[in-house]
This record gives sequence, structure tokens and C-alpha cells, in this order.
Amino acid sequence: MSKEKLYLVKIGGNVIDDEKTLHSFLADFSKIPTKKILVHGGGKIATEISKGLGVEAQMIEGRRVTDAETLKIVTMVYAGLINKNIVAKLQANNNNAIGLTGADANCILSNKRPLKNDIDYGFVGDIKNIDSKVLSLLISNNLNPVIAPITHDGNGNLLNTNADSVATSLAIGLSQEYEVDLVYCFELKGVLSDFEDKNSVISKIDFKKYQHLKNEGIISKGMIPKLDNSFESINNGVNRVIICQANDLLPIIQGENLGTLLVKAE
Amino acid sequence: MSKEKLYLVKIGGNVIDDEKTLHSFLADFSKIPTKKILVHGGGKIATEISKGLGVEAQMIEGRRVTDAETLKIVTMVYAGLINKNIVAKLQANNNNAIGLTGADANCILSNKRPLKNDIDYGFVGDIKNIDSKVLSLLISNNLNPVIAPITHDGNGNLLNTNADSVATSLAIGLSQEYEVDLVYCFELKGVLSDFEDKNSVISKIDFKKYQHLKNEGIISKGMIPKLDNSFESINNGVNRVIICQANDLLPIIQGENLGTLLVKAE
Repeated sequence: MSKEKLYLVKIGGNVIDDEKTLHSFLADFSKIPTKKILVHGGGKIATEISKGLGVEAQMIEGRRVTDAETLKIVTMVYAGLINKNIVAKLQANNNNAIGLTGADANCILSNKRPLKNDIDYGFVGDIKNIDSKVLSLLISNNLNPVIAPITHDGNGNLLNTNADSVATSLAIGLSQEYEVDLVYCFELKGVLSDFEDKNSVISKIDFKKYQHLKNEGIISKGMIPKLDNSFESINNGVNRVIICQANDLLPIIQGENLGTLLVKAE
Repeated sequence: MSKEKLYLVKIGGNVIDDEKTLHSFLADFSKIPTKKILVHGGGKIATEISKGLGVEAQMIEGRRVTDAETLKIVTMVYAGLINKNIVAKLQANNNNAIGLTGADANCILSNKRPLKNDIDYGFVGDIKNIDSKVLSLLISNNLNPVIAPITHDGNGNLLNTNADSVATSLAIGLSQEYEVDLVYCFELKGVLSDFEDKNSVISKIDFKKYQHLKNEGIISKGMIPKLDNSFESINNGVNRVIICQANDLLPIIQGENLGTLLVKAE
């Protein structure tokens, strides 16, 4: 029996920070005719609120270092402000959204990241388990989960978690029951073969080609974690991964050849 | 066929503001052997965050006036910080909690309150509809909803909503399917016959007795909205309402005669 289709879409700060972009993205997302899940990142708002409250944001290797005060702020901003505004706006589009963190319904359990090279990332979670059964219960009842990148350790602590990792883990976990297409919406039109040329989108890439382009230095540093995550998900049951701009999401789902399609082997 | 028992428990700021009280309350709540829902209010944290961000809290007749900035703060604090911390702590007590606002799964729809005597309450919601069907779906799958007092208008706007009203409306809405006991946990041991004597708890009260005590001036002003809400719920299908201290919740559920029991008629 063929599995039912599920789109798992991840949006980052560039979509969240701009009201018009977010509004138009959510209208498009609502038009996806299949089952769907939205995972969102943070954006600038957390940094602004931190500044307002006099809490300085610390970054190590592109990841926020999460002390107790920063954890409070990301919980407020990601799970509260951003998540609930997205849910309310999806409801206005007749899309029955339900906003969740990993603590809700115990759907994403994490381990607090251990010290690494003497770096303490603080309250940051590395995902340990996805409860795909409870997510399926919601999805099969036509509820569309909207997931904030906050998880928990099962001992009462919330943990700040990378939104790309949340999307990858959910996509893999749900692949047993659904045919999952994972779509990363970000600021560029796709993976570029020439970073100076925003239109040099690589339309299709398999793991072998990725290794080659990485070795040649053609794929830039910032893309590597995203592509590593993506190939991990393809190797673990996800049907396909697409990396694209937010406003290309709906055309892609309707069959247009935009963005970068990652496949297991060409 | 007799209906299944559901406890709908509401906690206010006095439980939320004190870490030890909250911890012990959540351990007790987890021990309730029947289906259950927790509704929480706000507490001092929203006021503190507002101060930190330079947003002044305005109150009219005991209700917060919610301008756009205040709405952002209550959304962050109630739906984010407080709700998710409660959920994570319940999970640590092996209680499969799921934190929701009224926007999530469209479970509580409100109308923005119209101007009243020239007072603009701002983004405040008066409850219009409860989707008890979606809440039943969660409850019957052993998920325990934890509800923050934020609702939505169906047009993309979140609305700050009185937590007592949320509890009352949910209790009424769920009474068709469940035998609902509504428990308000607050700072006193129950409704007092002498406000100077904290132990003068009225153990049982019906509507007639309430009207009498109100007319005599024995029931104080602050209690009137809570009791009006409570009798409204009893007249609309709720099995019983109990008003008590948070640490008396579990003994009451286990059969002890504490707090004030509101009944339809003695």
C-alpha cells in the first residue's frame, strides 16, 4: 500500500522577520493539499527582546549559547510569540494548526548537549527521540502541527534545539508512516554553484555530486550542515528533500522545477 | 450510561509565582487518576517582563488593558514561558501534557471586546465558542491539555482572555461528554464567611445562599466574579465547582471535605 503524502516544511528567520513575507508564505502553506507540518526557527525577535531585557546573546559556531536567561527568552519568543502568531494566522487561512514544542505530548525528547572541547552550549538539546505516533494522531485528525525549536529532556527542563535538526528528525520519524517530502525554505533560490550568482541554482544533487562539490570548495561552508542534515534524512527513509526560497514552495508542490532537489542517487 | 469523570483545574498567579508551590501543585495534579485539564493564569512574571522592556501595565477594574505591546508580552509569557515550563514539569511527572492556547486546534474562539463606557480594553477576548470535540480527541488519547489564557478571533489576531472565564467555558463545553468537576485553586482556603478569619470557610453553598450572603455584604467584592462564573457553570451542566487552596486539591479529590463546594441546590 502506498503511503500518504506529508510535506514537512521548515522556515527560517528570513521568513519570520518580515511580516509580508510571512503572511504570503502562510497563505501558500495553507494551500498545500496534503498532510503537512511546519517547523519554524527563531529570527531576530529573540535578539531584540534579549537586548531590551539586557541579556546579551552569545554565539559559538553559529549556534546560540543558551544560558538560563536566554532559555527563558527563546521559550517566550519561539514557543510563545512566533508560534502562536503563526498558528492564529494559519487559522485565519482555514488551516487547523496546532502549535507545539517537543515537550508538548512528549513529541521530541532531547539530551542536554555535553561539554565539547570545553565549550558549554548551555541549555541546548540534541534530539534523542521523536514520538511519531502522537504526531500521526494529530495529523490523521486533520490538525497541522506547527513546531517551535524547543524540546525537553524528560526531567522538567526545556532545551533550545536547532530548527533544521528538528525538521530532519521529524521527517525521518514520520517516514515510517508517510511519504515525507522535506522542504527547507531559506533566503536563496537553492544550492548555488556560484555564490556570486544568485541564479546559479543546482537543480538536482545526489550524495556523490555533493561530496564532489564540497571537495572542490564549490558548496560554501554555511550550506554544509544543512546538506549533511538533508542527506542524512534521505538515507533514513525521507522521500526527497528540496531546498528553496519560501515563495517557490507552492509552485514546487504544484510540479514546477525550482529550488534544489536532493535525491538518493541520480 | 454514566459520563466519564473529568477534573478541570484552574490555577492563578499565586501558584505560578512561587516555584516550590508550583512544583508541589504539579506533582499533585499528576496524581489525579481521571481525565484532566489544567488552565493557568498569568502571575507577576508578565509584569516583570513588561517593566524590563519599558512597557507599562495598565489595569481597569482588575483586568489588564492589552495594547499591542502588552499582547506580545502576555503571549510570550503565558503561552511560552509559563505554559511550556508547566508542560515540561508535568512530563517529568509522567503526565502526558499538551500545552495549548485557544488558537491551537481552534479550540477557543473569541470576540474582541467592544468599547464599554468609553473604555477600550484593547486586545481582550470574550469567549464565543469552545471546540469540545477536538479537546475530547486529545483527552480520550490520554493527553492532558494545559491551557494558557490566550484565545483568537479567527481572523489572525490573538486575544488576552480572563483565565477564570476560560476555565468556566471549557467546563461547560466539556460537560456534554464528561462529568466535569471544576476546581478553582486560589490563595485562600475557600469562600470565607468572615474575611478577617482565614479559617471561616463556608463548606457548601448553593445559589440561594450565595445571593443571601452577597446581599448581606458577607461575600467580598473580589469573590463575586468568581462565584458568578461558578454558578453560571453549574447552571450549564457542570457537575460541581470547588474553590480551594492549591495544596488542598488532591485531598479533596480523594474525598476530604475541604474548600468550598458549590452546588445547584442544597
